[in-house]
Amino acid sequence: MEHIRTPKVEQVKLLDRFSNKSVIGTLHLTATHLIFILHHHIASVEKLSLTTSGCPLLIQCRNFRLVHFVIPRERDCHDIYSSLLRLLRPVSYDELYAFSYNPKQNDQQREEGWQLIDLAAEFERMGVPCDQWQLTDVNREYKVCETYPRDLYVPITASKPIIVGSSKFRSKGRFPVLTYFYQEKKAAVCRCSQPLSGFSARCLEDEHMLQAISKSNHNSRYIYVMDTRPKVERHEVFFSLFVGSLQKLLEVVGTRSLSMTDYLVGLENSGWLRHIKAIMDAAIFLAKAVTVEGASVLVHCSDGWDRTAQVCALGSLLMDPYYRTIKGFMVLIEKDWISFGHKFADRCDQLDPDPKEVSPIFTQFLECVWQLTEQFPQAFEFSEWFLIQIHEHVHSCQFGNFLGNSQRQREVLQLKERTYSLWAHLLSEKQNYLNPVYSPSFAESHPVLEPSTQACHFKFWRNMYHQYDRSMHPRQSILKQVLTFKESNRELEGTVQALKTKLQKFGVSTSPLKPQTPPRDRSLPLRPQSLILGAPLLKRTVEGSSATENGYGELTGSFGSKNEPAVVTLEFGVARMTC
Amino acid sequence: MEHIRTPKVEQVKLLDRFSNKSVIGTLHLTATHLIFILHHHIASVEKLSLTTSGCPLLIQCRNFRLVHFVIPRERDCHDIYSSLLRLLRPVSYDELYAFSYNPKQNDQQREEGWQLIDLAAEFERMGVPCDQWQLTDVNREYKVCETYPRDLYVPITASKPIIVGSSKFRSKGRFPVLTYFYQEKKAAVCRCSQPLSGFSARCLEDEHMLQAISKSNHNSRYIYVMDTRPKVERHEVFFSLFVGSLQKLLEVVGTRSLSMTDYLVGLENSGWLRHIKAIMDAAIFLAKAVTVEGASVLVHCSDGWDRTAQVCALGSLLMDPYYRTIKGFMVLIEKDWISFGHKFADRCDQLDPDPKEVSPIFTQFLECVWQLTEQFPQAFEFSEWFLIQIHEHVHSCQFGNFLGNSQRQREVLQLKERTYSLWAHLLSEKQNYLNPVYSPSFAESHPVLEPSTQACHFKFWRNMYHQYDRSMHPRQSILKQVLTFKESNRELEGTVQALKTKLQKFGVSTSPLKPQTPPRDRSLPLRPQSLILGAPLLKRTVEGSSATENGYGELTGSFGSKNEPAVVTLEFGVARMTC
Repeated sequence: MEHIRTPKVEQVKLLDRFSNKSVIGTLHLTATHLIFILHHHIASVEKLSLTTSGCPLLIQCRNFRLVHFVIPRERDCHDIYSSLLRLLRPVSYDELYAFSYNPKQNDQQREEGWQLIDLAAEFERMGVPCDQWQLTDVNREYKVCETYPRDLYVPITASKPIIVGSSKFRSKGRFPVLTYFYQEKKAAVCRCSQPLSGFSARCLEDEHMLQAISKSNHNSRYIYVMDTRPKVERHEVFFSLFVGSLQKLLEVVGTRSLSMTDYLVGLENSGWLRHIKAIMDAAIFLAKAVTVEGASVLVHCSDGWDRTAQVCALGSLLMDPYYRTIKGFMVLIEKDWISFGHKFADRCDQLDPDPKEVSPIFTQFLECVWQLTEQFPQAFEFSEWFLIQIHEHVHSCQFGNFLGNSQRQREVLQLKERTYSLWAHLLSEKQNYLNPVYSPSFAESHPVLEPSTQACHFKFWRNMYHQYDRSMHPRQSILKQVLTFKESNRELEGTVQALKTKLQKFGVSTSPLKPQTPPRDRSLPLRPQSLILGAPLLKRTVEGSSATENGYGELTGSFGSKNEPAVVTLEFGVARMTC
Repeated sequence: MEHIRTPKVEQVKLLDRFSNKSVIGTLHLTATHLIFILHHHIASVEKLSLTTSGCPLLIQCRNFRLVHFVIPRERDCHDIYSSLLRLLRPVSYDELYAFSYNPKQNDQQREEGWQLIDLAAEFERMGVPCDQWQLTDVNREYKVCETYPRDLYVPITASKPIIVGSSKFRSKGRFPVLTYFYQEKKAAVCRCSQPLSGFSARCLEDEHMLQAISKSNHNSRYIYVMDTRPKVERHEVFFSLFVGSLQKLLEVVGTRSLSMTDYLVGLENSGWLRHIKAIMDAAIFLAKAVTVEGASVLVHCSDGWDRTAQVCALGSLLMDPYYRTIKGFMVLIEKDWISFGHKFADRCDQLDPDPKEVSPIFTQFLECVWQLTEQFPQAFEFSEWFLIQIHEHVHSCQFGNFLGNSQRQREVLQLKERTYSLWAHLLSEKQNYLNPVYSPSFAESHPVLEPSTQACHFKFWRNMYHQYDRSMHPRQSILKQVLTFKESNRELEGTVQALKTKLQKFGVSTSPLKPQTPPRDRSLPLRPQSLILGAPLLKRTVEGSSATENGYGELTGSFGSKNEPAVVTLEFGVARMTC
């Protein structure tokens, strides 16, 4: 509290970015909050030069809100400003909200929250351990790789000396381990970091490791090694590239009365959607290699915790409908991001970090998932608000899940004892995140998603980056309408049940009862049949034809045949190896 | 039939633009169709140079389909090519499909079809004739203005000499007449063409006409004159600008494996969305002037049948929920486009016209409506397929409605006797065009739509301009899912009714029956409450504040106050006159 000089300022004007409206309010400063905004959501605070109506204070938030206060007295403004500068930069983990947040739960409830996600059970669900893959205890004490989790899955033929040898050859000791097992074809998705001395130097143990991965899959002679490092940029440049890209995007969409030209040019200049498309392309490549060729794939970038996490997680989501459910998506994040050591603390600027380490890597992943929900509205159990809420809490530091840079660090911080799990919280309000048009039967018939990455299918994610835009009058939502239909269905079913119960009291059987209105044909075409002779014929023919193919007919081509030099457009390198 | 040298070619390969797939088929040439494509949908046909697999034939359609055939023998290809060149350019109206199309209806059915839309009834619905506006018979013989309809509505104080005098002062005789009457404020939307000699020359009768319009509205001292002519370009350049813009848009989205950069730069370069936004801005201006200020507005462009039609029709749609229903939208098109002489024959290239006259003016209007349906998904009774189907038939020339350039010409062609009405056809399959989330109660609570024209709210209309894109696997639709819910509701309601009837036989009252499941709170927030202290407070405060304003608080400003110089960004000129 010693940082707070003025806990309350009255007559503060809050300006709306998108209209000329403003509201007068009182600004409160508490130990954890500036009223309206959680301190930790504040990315930057700026004091503009004094105007006749007061001193403007510009606050930019990590959840993409931009707040513009006008404070009558300059002195008050300065006090708030300097307090905020200190408050938004906690210097120790203990200062983070998670350690003071108390949702009035007892210890048992908190523990149960943390037990909701069980990664051992997740590997079991995939069919691991099995005759080819085993759990190794080599990292139980975090001695081989301190940024990996304790439990790691490796080929049964990979002995401890091989593992240890391979880990010495790899950056940060991050040797190749299993992250997803595609049971149907016994194909593995593995991840690691880059070799320490490039491909020219040899390491026998590392070669053995690759051989072991390759041989564990009898379905394919090949193993694909996807190098997702950018071809041109150096690692650090690459990072600031993403930050700059996002910053440009936000500047563009935050500008009022932007002309169409400035918007589209700005969107392009930001490069944001280009990065999103590149990640999507890589994930699709991965999913095709695994599900169509039945090949195992080893993904790496530099340290194996950024691009690697994006591609492995998104690729798995394309292959496995479970990850498209609310619970499954939590498991996916817990596995490929949290347990494998995506550096949330550094990337999300949790604790006075090196600015060069900050990068919206995880935001990009969430956006890729959102783009998929737009292409496949029935395939996901959750709506975009689930993704947005996760993003909110990655930055709020209100829950323990995303604190720190690795599992080991989380254990040292005793997060499971001292903080609460976001997943329990989100599950408790699951109702708010449901996608009303989710169709489990769609998942059954389309286990593998095949998104299009044509440029025109990528959209600007308004509800994420423009979420405080109040210019859309009136607020409304298709989702709400659909929920009303669903709700009404539920009520009617209740009424039917009640009526049946009443009738049964009279000894009347209700089972053969038919509705008075005949059920209509559910296959009603929504795109009306064109009247033009031949157009339906065209459609039939083509669909018939494509049905005989497997839908991934171009895959082999995409690895370099002359028909489909698609690999040229991908921003990652692929080597096909027979080990 | 004499133009057809080869009615059938086998072993023709149809290439898919978006994948490497192709289908082998047989190409049939009949008097009215190339099988797959209605001749009149073909915009251009191109024969490319011979390849080893055959002779490529590239057909570009007006409904934005692009078809790529490969025909084994060059001779066959050439025959098809020259036949098509002739067939897609009918030289007389009699050759158009509408005159041979026969949906097996008798004369009475056809007549009833044409009687579905009644513009006299439409003006009555608006409250016209009334104490200030009357029907004039001055144009009964098309003598004052041959491109106007027979029935015109003018102020009661506008005598025939004033009308005739004004018409002589206006291009093509298109003097100011009423097109929409906003009953609530007695404000009129009028339309006309430009003065013949600019504003410097004076015409007393025309001035009297403007005075008459102004005085018929007791609510406002002002009348706004909206000049929607482009500021810079000459009329003809303006037209080819739209054609070029659309052409560029189609080229961009038609390119395979387009990079994100090329897509966004191409979208911007096309300028298409800029034009759409300009029309929307003008329509919003119109709607605000009428509904908020209660002022009458006179809209004109050059001849008053292109931009004027766009702005009047879109403005009316913003003001009047009736035009957002299926029937009302037909009435709107029939009134502001067909009856007021939008030159469909010239603009849509129906009959060997002057290429300089072709322009996608009506397509732009349909797209503006689509953009509105995206912003207000509950406000429209119809889905986008309705708009797309109308667009299809503007170009198919299968129905009589859009043939020719004016009502007079349509009468000469005896279209009502010799062809069928599209509206009857569309109403007969209305089921296919319904928007399942349409909410009439939304229309009640939001009679006037207030769209946002921030650049990021304009989207690319994939289902229109990319409608034959088969790269989106799998085909699916939220609409279909929602229809299923609605359908299930209908069935359940039937069941409830049946059960109640049964119970009544036992003398049991069913009225106070409660469902077994308690109804949930319908106001369930879809955007989950943020956990951040104060965020809900912020929302409440701001919404409370805006509720006290009328929602159009900036309007006065938008006419030139220093707070809101919005008029600067509009692409049309406005004069505020006191007559």
